[in-house]
Amino acid sequence: MVSSVGQILPELSRSVTQDMIGGYAAVSGDSNPVHVDPEFAAGSSFGRIVAHGMLTLAFVSDMLAQAFGRSWLESGRLKVRFRAPVYPGDDVTTFGQVTDVTDEDAGHRIRCTVGCRKLDGQEVVTGEASVVVQHG
Amino acid sequence: MVSSVGQILPELSRSVTQDMIGGYAAVSGDSNPVHVDPEFAAGSSFGRIVAHGMLTLAFVSDMLAQAFGRSWLESGRLKVRFRAPVYPGDDVTTFGQVTDVTDEDAGHRIRCTVGCRKLDGQEVVTGEASVVVQHG
Repeated sequence: MVSSVGQILPELSRSVTQDMIGGYAAVSGDSNPVHVDPEFAAGSSFGRIVAHGMLTLAFVSDMLAQAFGRSWLESGRLKVRFRAPVYPGDDVTTFGQVTDVTDEDAGHRIRCTVGCRKLDGQEVVTGEASVVVQHG
Repeated sequence: MVSSVGQILPELSRSVTQDMIGGYAAVSGDSNPVHVDPEFAAGSSFGRIVAHGMLTLAFVSDMLAQAFGRSWLESGRLKVRFRAPVYPGDDVTTFGQVTDVTDEDAGHRIRCTVGCRKLDGQEVVTGEASVVVQHG
């Protein structure tokens, strides 16, 4: 269990594909053509299909779910900023580290810096997350 | 364009289905059995399949993308808290309202309260979002 200041959360790596972006569009309902229509996207200022920012945030959430189990689902808080676009073919890796642990009535609140970056180090989403892990 | 304090963001309503939850699991990589294995989920303290909190947040993001276009994709910030579980068969509606508009170098930063609730009014995710809308 991740529970001490300074601990690193196990990273997750993902290759972003057009299928993945299409799947996210279908599930979320956000089918803006910049995500799913190559011809439209080519004419946009991105010049090509771009992933939903929330897709990379989904990977961050998966990392938190794996690190904290249902504590993430039940008590999660998240504060993030979208920083750079991600394109099909990009490989990204999540990251996280515990920065603070405090006692609350319901348990320990564990705060982490979190984010997701490309292989070249460019950060695509960054922020903070916290969960309450019950005593005992 | 949504740009004045007090303005209401157009709501989005969604019916959460097991297919949707399975699709989100496939795309995000978060295939915890509490989301995708009815037998396992029945034996958990939820007693049944529960949706990823991030799925309801995806609906909130879709609302923001529709209200603010690529400003959301390029300059979005989000601070949220997951408050209650959502189950297959639940109908949910997003909500949002502009609370503050301030000038920044790059444009106007528009801040909103946002969230998603069930038909009975129970809030499942709540928080704040902001985007920068360029001058002109």
